[in-house]
Parts: sequence; structure tokens; C-alpha cells
Amino acid sequence: MGRRTGVWLIGARGSLAVTSMAGAAAVRAGLAEPIGLVGETPALASVGLPSLTDLVFGGHDVVDTPLQKRAEQLVQSGVLPTALPAAVADDLRAAGAEIRQGAHRDDRSPQSVTAERLAADLTSFRDRNDLDRVVVMNVSSTEPVVEPRQEHDDLTALRAAIRTSPDVLPTSALYAYAAFTAGCSFIDFTPSTGARLPALHELALSRGLPYGGSDGKTGETLVKTALAPMFAARALRVLSWSGTNLLGGGDGATLADPEAAASKTASKQRSVAETLGHEVDGQTHIDYVPDLGDWKTAWDHVSFAGFLGVRMSLQFTWQGCDSALAAPLVLDLARLAARAHQAGEVGPLAALAFFFKDPIGSTEHRLSTQYDQLCAWAGGLT
Amino acid sequence: MGRRTGVWLIGARGSLAVTSMAGAAAVRAGLAEPIGLVGETPALASVGLPSLTDLVFGGHDVVDTPLQKRAEQLVQSGVLPTALPAAVADDLRAAGAEIRQGAHRDDRSPQSVTAERLAADLTSFRDRNDLDRVVVMNVSSTEPVVEPRQEHDDLTALRAAIRTSPDVLPTSALYAYAAFTAGCSFIDFTPSTGARLPALHELALSRGLPYGGSDGKTGETLVKTALAPMFAARALRVLSWSGTNLLGGGDGATLADPEAAASKTASKQRSVAETLGHEVDGQTHIDYVPDLGDWKTAWDHVSFAGFLGVRMSLQFTWQGCDSALAAPLVLDLARLAARAHQAGEVGPLAALAFFFKDPIGSTEHRLSTQYDQLCAWAGGLT
Amino acid sequence: MGRRTGVWLIGARGSLAVTSMAGAAAVRAGLAEPIGLVGETPALASVGLPSLTDLVFGGHDVVDTPLQKRAEQLVQSGVLPTALPAAVADDLRAAGAEIRQGAHRDDRSPQSVTAERLAADLTSFRDRNDLDRVVVMNVSSTEPVVEPRQEHDDLTALRAAIRTSPDVLPTSALYAYAAFTAGCSFIDFTPSTGARLPALHELALSRGLPYGGSDGKTGETLVKTALAPMFAARALRVLSWSGTNLLGGGDGATLADPEAAASKTASKQRSVAETLGHEVDGQTHIDYVPDLGDWKTAWDHVSFAGFLGVRMSLQFTWQGCDSALAAPLVLDLARLAARAHQAGEVGPLAALAFFFKDPIGSTEHRLSTQYDQLCAWAGGLT
Amino acid sequence: MGRRTGVWLIGARGSLAVTSMAGAAAVRAGLAEPIGLVGETPALASVGLPSLTDLVFGGHDVVDTPLQKRAEQLVQSGVLPTALPAAVADDLRAAGAEIRQGAHRDDRSPQSVTAERLAADLTSFRDRNDLDRVVVMNVSSTEPVVEPRQEHDDLTALRAAIRTSPDVLPTSALYAYAAFTAGCSFIDFTPSTGARLPALHELALSRGLPYGGSDGKTGETLVKTALAPMFAARALRVLSWSGTNLLGGGDGATLADPEAAASKTASKQRSVAETLGHEVDGQTHIDYVPDLGDWKTAWDHVSFAGFLGVRMSLQFTWQGCDSALAAPLVLDLARLAARAHQAGEVGPLAALAFFFKDPIGSTEHRLSTQYDQLCAWAGGLT
Repeated sequence: MGRRTGVWLIGARGSLAVTSMAGAAAVRAGLAEPIGLVGETPALASVGLPSLTDLVFGGHDVVDTPLQKRAEQLVQSGVLPTALPAAVADDLRAAGAEIRQGAHRDDRSPQSVTAERLAADLTSFRDRNDLDRVVVMNVSSTEPVVEPRQEHDDLTALRAAIRTSPDVLPTSALYAYAAFTAGCSFIDFTPSTGARLPALHELALSRGLPYGGSDGKTGETLVKTALAPMFAARALRVLSWSGTNLLGGGDGATLADPEAAASKTASKQRSVAETLGHEVDGQTHIDYVPDLGDWKTAWDHVSFAGFLGVRMSLQFTWQGCDSALAAPLVLDLARLAARAHQAGEVGPLAALAFFFKDPIGSTEHRLSTQYDQLCAWAGGLT
Repeated sequence: MGRRTGVWLIGARGSLAVTSMAGAAAVRAGLAEPIGLVGETPALASVGLPSLTDLVFGGHDVVDTPLQKRAEQLVQSGVLPTALPAAVADDLRAAGAEIRQGAHRDDRSPQSVTAERLAADLTSFRDRNDLDRVVVMNVSSTEPVVEPRQEHDDLTALRAAIRTSPDVLPTSALYAYAAFTAGCSFIDFTPSTGARLPALHELALSRGLPYGGSDGKTGETLVKTALAPMFAARALRVLSWSGTNLLGGGDGATLADPEAAASKTASKQRSVAETLGHEVDGQTHIDYVPDLGDWKTAWDHVSFAGFLGVRMSLQFTWQGCDSALAAPLVLDLARLAARAHQAGEVGPLAALAFFFKDPIGSTEHRLSTQYDQLCAWAGGLT
Repeated sequence: MGRRTGVWLIGARGSLAVTSMAGAAAVRAGLAEPIGLVGETPALASVGLPSLTDLVFGGHDVVDTPLQKRAEQLVQSGVLPTALPAAVADDLRAAGAEIRQGAHRDDRSPQSVTAERLAADLTSFRDRNDLDRVVVMNVSSTEPVVEPRQEHDDLTALRAAIRTSPDVLPTSALYAYAAFTAGCSFIDFTPSTGARLPALHELALSRGLPYGGSDGKTGETLVKTALAPMFAARALRVLSWSGTNLLGGGDGATLADPEAAASKTASKQRSVAETLGHEVDGQTHIDYVPDLGDWKTAWDHVSFAGFLGVRMSLQFTWQGCDSALAAPLVLDLARLAARAHQAGEVGPLAALAFFFKDPIGSTEHRLSTQYDQLCAWAGGLT
Repeated sequence: MGRRTGVWLIGARGSLAVTSMAGAAAVRAGLAEPIGLVGETPALASVGLPSLTDLVFGGHDVVDTPLQKRAEQLVQSGVLPTALPAAVADDLRAAGAEIRQGAHRDDRSPQSVTAERLAADLTSFRDRNDLDRVVVMNVSSTEPVVEPRQEHDDLTALRAAIRTSPDVLPTSALYAYAAFTAGCSFIDFTPSTGARLPALHELALSRGLPYGGSDGKTGETLVKTALAPMFAARALRVLSWSGTNLLGGGDGATLADPEAAASKTASKQRSVAETLGHEVDGQTHIDYVPDLGDWKTAWDHVSFAGFLGVRMSLQFTWQGCDSALAAPLVLDLARLAARAHQAGEVGPLAALAFFFKDPIGSTEHRLSTQYDQLCAWAGGLT
């Protein structure tokens, strides 16, 4: 009945991918409870998602770290329970065997050549494992902000350009191109470009494929989108919303590069303004603090005016483990995207806004409303 | 067309009442923006609420503080703008002329006698001011928790008992009894008993009157009910939710009395358990800290398990001005209760849950859902 | 040259004792850096402390948990590094062999009999291991507050009383009695009575022994005593100081018993008043939150008046691991007490105030001043 | 006996200057308690400071805002009590009459000409008011970081250069030059250059004058320097120290200019590294949030390793009113500098480190030690 589902992760040897794969194995083996998995809650129990047992993992990466080694690092940093890597060693070995060499940012071949190779990896993965469909998901590091180019706006022009150029598409978009070419849905869990180009939208439509993103909502923004509607509903006037994020780990290092951070802080600020209907003062900082490892701490300060203009404030501190917050969303998104693909959904999956800082196809940022929309949409899939 | 609406406040000389009356005057005179007033937002613009200009204030109290003097105290503590008491002096004078002697807790007359006197005050207020209807709202200090008595369960028995006894009903319930007797709707903004007795419910039904409460949701619990659904929707497991409230002012002193605090902390903890569907560890403290005056600070600490059981935490600190948070709710509730009365609503107004820590007639604590229910209900009133 | 030093821990199988013993072994084996050990800093490098290698561990306890098992529990709760229990297994085995049955609270023998048995354990430990001296340190759970009795005030009366009574002394004081009887110094790391009775002071003096305590300063109070002098030096007027402590683990469970908590919260509040020279409003709560395990979170809120009476505030949140904060102090105190004993110090060791919430023999709570006093005193020991 | 003391403020019409002048008047009139004034505490009672009554105010500024108007603005923003401006109107009028046109940054005259004018203002102020001495203090906005120039290193070269150049000295240094020329001591309350140039040091020495600075320690750094010694004394290893400062008002706007902020954030980070003896990770942000007005909020996050490397954290939030924190320091510094001048102290006043983020002549940042040094020094003045 069309249940075997491939989950192809871009960045398959990274912390997030390995936490997702090890965690899926742990939950299906009954070694861990399904905490954090929205797909396992009663609300989504009867919408026909592929089960965790139906998922087959593979992916692209540009590094060679064995999954088992990465899993052991994740134990050291407190993300995975001590005994888990050994318990799921077979699963990691199987997934490791399905990882292929990814696209290097500085590869000088024409991008059409690379795209063909990547698409072939996807096709072969699907065939070899007898999968009904494959979801490609980008969980690699955040790219720098990309300069717009004319070729991004038109599929024919794009196809011509990549035949000769090595860099017309940012890497994340090249993966999306390859995914659509191979008939796979595509989810971007990062703030990178991914499928968000008119030419790629055109391609997804022509192939009848759904896609989604961007930038998994796992911490500070999750809380912001739970709190901002409170101010709106109570007619309290938010005057400023300031935030500082401290994070170590790979993502921290990447975002310390101000170019990459720019794309992330922009999507972090948008949600508040769009919820409240007006701009608010305040900056959002992302600081790289290596000793924090995979843990992140966010402090937000909101000043607001109440009745008769009285000034008040709300502060929150969120302390979480990045990979452990993101991994269940990866699994949920893979299952939901596969289900949407099966149901014939095409184009941007606006109903996935619940999972994203910068939801493709939606300007709804209120968490509760996003949740209601997700449940209604999933319940209505045919 | 039935618009002139009386707002009769129990505790009419207190900080909350005076902030409400002075604030209503300021907003209708264009001296202040309608911040905090849900009734002035687009969502409730066309549901037919009486306008702020339609409201006429009066009330009961057991102290004699002139409203003008209380308003000046509220300037000192930063609740009211410096120039406001002078600007709204006429309004305060008019309201002051409509304040009558309230019911003393240690009055030894039979309660039927007192109730008649209170009801006569209401009737006379309505007649004198040519009001279409009157909403009675309790904004006085929190009562100690009350022992249940058999007479509370049956209207006939209650009527018999109050004919001889001076204390069968707690004062807040005596006010509700008088309100219903005089054909007025009743709202309890405090955690006291108010209308929450089977005998009073019977009385409200027999008179075709609506009522609502309890315990205005103005601070810590407001934030809790915005955040708890986030954990539920994301399938994160809340392990403990602890809170400390520091507050000065009259309410702080009352709640320092552990008996009164008991009723308040109980309603504070209920919302989380009912939203999450399971009990969580953790205590809620209310500390009286006189130097904080009308300002309150709440700190909450939530520990939760994420994917694979990883422990994380969320903390928030809320710093607000109690009267300024509560006053716009008082005005909103008065207008909504009057509108419900006009529309023929009878019994507990569950749709007002949005405003209360311990909503009568509802176990819904999720703030966004409460808001949606409020808007839908108000929009459907005939 | 008098260097081999016994460290006899009351509560030797508990988390704090095992963290101390395993940690000492790790540091002397070069497996861990001496973080947290004041005795290893340059300031105390030349004061002649016994080295970590000179320490020999033993103790009393009333439970049988093997040290190795407790160490593995401490790995689970994140206190000890994964590999440590195996690496220090020999040390734990040696220490385990030196643990004797402690005094039960409900033992009905005359306390003189129990005291003789405990003292004999100490003497035998010293002889068997050829130790120059032994420090007895109480690291067991906090006792309930004790009723004063006349016999506590006079050594002769006390000796007479314990010959027949099973409960004239609280257990912690019985250990102090036994320690002094056996010629050992005594440190109370808990808020229990310990040596703080006139009769025991008399005994310590008659034997020429030093003693110290009480209640190790490891978290909230540590920060308080660093911050309170700031307000005093800057002439800022502290109006209120409120605090909430959330803790799990054995100590949390003990302190959830309000009687035991009373002794702890009292010592927590004293430091601020004694530093500022006036009482301040505010309460300190200790909440038992089981899921926090060995971790504790403290939130403090300080409101203060600045120039011209302007109200301002300082809040802090401290998140630490109880055993890891306390264990290095246990090692420091053992070495300092041994050194004091060697130097002929007799009676209360006021210069150890740096380590305690409720320092015996001192009303100095300012952390920096305590530190200066500690260094000056240690440097002057002969 | 040499007591009448001039306090000449650069930026005399700004919030800080007016709070200082109005506050001094309030305290000497008995309208306010001397909260925040270290010079009024017992520790400095007998060191011979000029009394508040001995102070005569004047200053330079480049704007024309009347002091009374600024005082009323300070009431609006909650810095000054409502009734104060009227109560001290005479004092403000007298001070206003002693304010002269300051040095404009873009004045194109040779700086020697401007310096002579400024010095003449000082001399004339001293003569007209029969003052024993005058302290010049810079309380104006922070300057951008200044490029070093050779002429800054040698007094003769400097004198030659200013005879023709309009910009060899930054404005703050030009004021210091004028102060020394007129025989006045100089204090820089800002992070600007002020007297910190070898040529100006030479000038101060040649005139036998003391000077001090830089950058008043009023908030986040005050707390940092109270807390950092705690980690050092307890041998806890600080891994990162991150901070975010939100501030409105004039200072916030100035510091939003990244060039000016650079000098401020640099001095903020130095104190921790110098106290701990090693660099620590972490950034300090200064965000301009206009709605906060004169209030600032700082959040700091400290991660540290304890025994056996266990990771822990301390966070604090400081919410204060900038002018109210700084003004009493301005008064203390004026009185201490005058006393030092009287006692014949020459050159940098290292003992004032207690008041500064970036103390001239001292690398001591530990607040308690600074306090002890201040008291010892002041007590020893002849």
C-alpha cells in the first residue's frame, strides 16, 4: 500500500542526522519513548503517516566520519544516552552503507553533471531498497546568503546555465534540483535557499512534487511564536523584543560567520512583526560559544506597554540541546512530506509552518494556529 | 437600543476599581490609547459591545478612601500617569457619588437583611441612571477558602438559612446573591466563592442571568497558558513546573495569609495539569514583598524531557503592574457580560475563560484556544 | 613529619562522600584537573596542607550501598565522568573496606555505649592505617532542628545523661562527641547541630582539638555572599531579597521535610542581614523537584533603592550540580582542619567561614573578606 | 580651611549632570536620603571630604536645554521624584548660571585657542565663587575610538601641534588639557580618551595635579567585578562569559554607533580576564532600544566547569536606571578628587578603581579589593 519511505539526509554524517537516525531506531526498538515526536501523538494517529518502522535512511555528505563515531561523540555531549550507539549499531551500519559523496561547494564541474550524479544516487537508493517514495531533507550547515541571479527565476534559463556553470545554484538548491529531478519531495530544515527559487518551484510543479521549509523552529523562535500571540490577543503593545542566542557546536561555528548568521537572524525577527502586525525594536544576536557544545541558551527580553501606557517586561531563558530538539522534527517532517507526496500534494506545503521559523507558503507564525492548521490539513489528506 | 450599562464594582474604592474607572474615562476622552482592551480590537469590533461611553460606574466598599485620593496614590506607585487624576476628576466624582456601604464580614444581621439592602442599592443605581442593565463585578480582596455547607447546595435551604444566620454565605457569594436578586449579571474577578454554589447557580437560572469568573488571569498564569500548549503540541514532556510570585500591595498582603493563598495557588497549578493531561511536579509560591507595591514579579522554571529523554529547561520572568494588567480585563468583562445578558445568555459564561485562571464552566486553559472560543462566541451573539 | 591524614566521613556511602573520594583519586592519578580545589591554588600552595596523596578515606554510614554502585549512579546523573568509576575502582574498594556501621537515630542503647563504639572505629582506623591524625566530617543528610536541653550546656551533665539516655544528643552531635573523644578534629558540612553545643565545645577544648562548620556554602548562598557586599559598599539600599531553590536528589527529599528545611532556610537568610546591617524583606524557599536529580537551580530576586530612592532590581539564576560543588570543599576542609590540628589550633576555626553558610565562630559573611581571612590564617599557621 | 569645592561638569546639561546636581541639592536640603553616596557612609566619614554643602556646580555644554527642563524630563522617565525639580529650582538656576559654551567637535579654530577659552572659564568660575579648588569631570557622551598620534606622547610636541591644528586632541582630552592648564584636577566618567595620553600625564605632573577615570562602573560591570572573584577564589573555571546590554536614552543612541561601542565593550570584557588570569570566550553586546529610555537591562550568562569538569552556569539580570546609578558616583568622585588634590596627590588616582570599568593606574578589578583599597587610601590622606 505504498508505505516504505526513504529519508535521504543532506549532511547525513552530522549531529542532527545521526541523532535522527539513532533516535528513530531507538524508538522503534522500544528503547526510548516517542518524546518530541508529533507524528506519534493522538492528534496525528489516524492520518496515515508511514510508521517509524517504514523509514529507510540514506544521504549525502562531504565528510567521512563514521556514523558510529559521531554517535559516540553525541554521547559525550549528552545528546544520546550512553548505551544507545551500541544498541542501534546495526541501524547505523545500514544507514552508513547508504551514504554517498555529496556536492562540494568548490566543485568546478558544471552543475548539471553534479545534479545528475546526485539524482542517480537517489534513484538507485529508491530502487535498491524498494521504496515507494523518498523524501530528501537538507540538514547540513547553513549557507551564506546568496546573491539573486536571473537564471533562478526561470527553469529553462536555469537548465541552460547549469550546463556550463559550476556555481549558478547554491549547493542547497542544487540538492533540491536533484531531488525534484529524481521525483523526490524536498524539505529544507536549514535557512539556506533550498527549493525557494521560482525555477525550482516550476520544476516541482512540473513533476507533481511537494516541498517545504525553511529553518526548523526548535528553540528561541518556538517560544517567541508561542508568546507573541499572547500580546496580540490581549492588545498589549510590544515595544521591543531583543534576543541573544549562545550556541556551540557546528551550527554555532557556522553562524559565527556573520554572512550565514544574517539569514538566520532575519528569519528569527520576522515572526514577531508578522504576528503583531507592526515592526518592533530590538536585535537578535547569535554568539558562538564553543564550550556550550550541542547546547544552546537563548535569552529574550520583551518590553511592552499595558493599560494607560504602563511599561512592563517579560524575559525568558531557554536552555536546550539543539540536536535533540531538531531530530524529532526531522522524523515528523519526513513522514508528513511522504504522506503529502502520496496524497498528491504539489508545491509548497504551507501546513508545515508549525515546524519552521520561516515557513514556505505561509505567513502564519502563531504556534497554536499553525498546530491547528497542521492537524486539519493532515486529517484531510486523501 | 439597550446600551446604557452599569458597572457595579465590589471593592469600588480599591486600586483595581479606580484604575478601571480612571482608565475608562481616559480612553473615552482620548487621553490614552486603548492598550490592553480586547473589546477595542478589530476581532471584537462588530459584536455589539456597549461602548466605553455607555458605561456608568458605581459600587460597594467598606472603606471610605475618596477615589481622587486613591488615584493619587496610584500615580505615586507608577500605575496612573501624573496628570490623569486631575483630568478625570469629574468622572471620579460621579462614580464616587454612586458608591454605597458594602457588606462587612463581621456584620451580625441575618444575611437576608444585608442582601436586601445590597440589592436595593443595585436597583436604585439602575433606576437613577436609567440603565438598561447592570453588571456586578467583584474586584475586592481574596477571601479565605470557605467550608462547604449543605445550604449552599439548594436555593430553598439557602433562603431559609440566611433569614436567621449572619454567615451562611461568604461575602462574595452574598454579593452574587444580591446581584441575581436584583436582576444583574455577576462576574467574579477574584478567586473567592462568588456565584460558584449550586444554590446560586439555581438562582441565576431562575432569573435568566449569566455569570462568570473566576480569578482574573493577568500575569504568571497568562504566560503559563500561552506556553503549556507549546509543550503539548510538540510532544515535549514537562517534568516539573515551579513558580514564585513576589507581590506587594493589598493583594500581596491578603495572599500572605496562607488560607487565602491556598485558593490562589490551587487555581494557578490546575491550568498546566489540565492542558498537559497529566500532573507535573512543582510548587507555586506567593510571597508578600511590601516594597514592590503594585508591581509583581513572577519567575517560573519548567524542566522538560525532549527526544530520547534529554533534560532541558525554560525559565521566564514576568514583571508587571497588577492593577494595570487587570483593569482592562475588568472593562472588557463588564462589556461582554452586559452583551451576553442582552443576548439572553443564561448561567456560566464558559466563553470568558480567556480572562480567568479558573474559568467557570470550562476546563479549557490554552490561551489561543480560549481566544478563538471567545471571538467565535461573541461573534455569534444575537 | 606528620602528613598521613585520615578523612572519616559520616555518610560515607552517600553521593557527596563518593564524589569526594572518587574525585580525590581522579585528581591524584592525573585523570582530572584540580578544578574547584582551593587547596591546590597558588594562594594555599605553601601553607603546608597534607597533599591529596596523603589522604586516607573511611567513614560511618547506616546504609550498605557499595561505593562502586553509588559511583555508577553518579555517572548516570552526570556528576562523574563515564570512565571514572572503573578508573578509581581500587581507591573505592580501599575506602569501602574502611566504612563501619554508623549510629542509627532510633538506636535505644545508651548513647555512651554508641559513642564508645564510634570512637573505637576512629581509633582503630588511625592505628590500622598509621595515620598522624584523623578529621571527622559530617556529610550525611540534614537533621531536623533539635530542642535545646540543659545537658547540652555542660560536659559533666552531658556525660552523666548519655550513660542512660538513648537520645540526649542528636546524631550529628554524638558523632562530634565520639570524634573529640578519639582525639579527632570535627567538621560539620551540614546545618545539623554537630559540635555546636557548649558541652562539646568544652570537650574539644579539653582535648586541644579544633572544629568547624556549618553547612557548606555551595550555591545560592555563595552567590549571595559575593553580591551582598556590593550593595553595602555602594551604599545601595536592599529592600527585599527573595529566593527559590529547586533541588532533587537525597538532599531535596530531606529538606522537603519542613522541619529540616527550617534550619537550612534560616542560615540562608542570616548572611544578607548580617552583611547589610539591617533586616531585609523576602523569603527563601526550598522546593523538592525530584526530576532535577543531583542538579539544583536557584533564582534570587533583589529589589533595591538607588539614588533618590529609585527602585531597581537584580536577579540571578544559579544552575549547579550539588555534589560536584560540595566535594572539593570537603577535600579542602579536611586538609585545612588537619593542618590546623597539626598547628595546635583549638576550638572553633573561624577562618573557615569562607566555606560555610553559617560559619562557627564568625559573623563575617562577605565572601572576599572570608577569602582574605582564610589565606591570612592559613599562611600564619606554624 | 580649604573646603569650598567647584564641580565643573563637561556635559552639564545632560541627564547625568542634572541628576547629580538636583540630587546633591535634594540630599543637602534633607529632601532625600544619601542612598548611593559612598562618601556619606561611615567608612569615609572621617577622611575629610568636602561636604555636599561645600560643592558649587558649573560646567560646559554644547546644547542649550535649560536645567529645569531637563529635570522635568527626568521626572517623566522616572529618574527624579515628581516634586524635586520645583524643590531644587534655585540650585538649578544657580548652576545654570555657571554653564558656559563647550568645545564643539567640529570647531575649526586651533585647539590652543579653544583650550585657553575653556581654561579661562574654569579660572573665572573659581575666582567668582571663591573656590579653593575645582574638579573637572567629563560626563558627556562617549567619543568614538581615537587614532593614536605622535603628538599625544610628548607635551612639547602637543603644545606645538594644537597651536595650528583644530583636531590633534579628541574633545575629551582637550578638556583635560584645559583643566590641567587651569590648575584643576580631572576625572573622566566616560570611556573617552580624557587625560589618558602621555603628554597630558606629563602636564598633570608638572602642575602637581591628580586625575582619574575611566568609564563609571554602574551596572553590568559592577556585578561582574563582584562575581568574577568568586569564581577565582573557589578555583572554578570560567569557560565563557557572555552579556547583552539593552539601553535607551542618549547613551544608548551614542553606543549604537559601533565605533563608540567598541571602546565601551572592550573595557567591559577586560575586567573578567584580568581577574581570572586568563581569557574567556564570550561577547558583550550593547543594543540601543529606544523605548527603555533611561533604564537599562543587562543579561549575563557565565558557563563554568566545576569539580571533575562538570558544566554549570550562572545568569544574572540587572535592571537599573542609568543616571540614578551614575549620579552618586559623580558626587563621590568630585569630593574624593578634591580631597586628593588638597592632600597633594599627583598623577593617576589608582585608588579610585572602585568606581571605574577601566581604572586608570590600576589593573585591580575585584570590587571588594577595590573597596578596601579606596578606604585605606582615603583614610591615609594627609
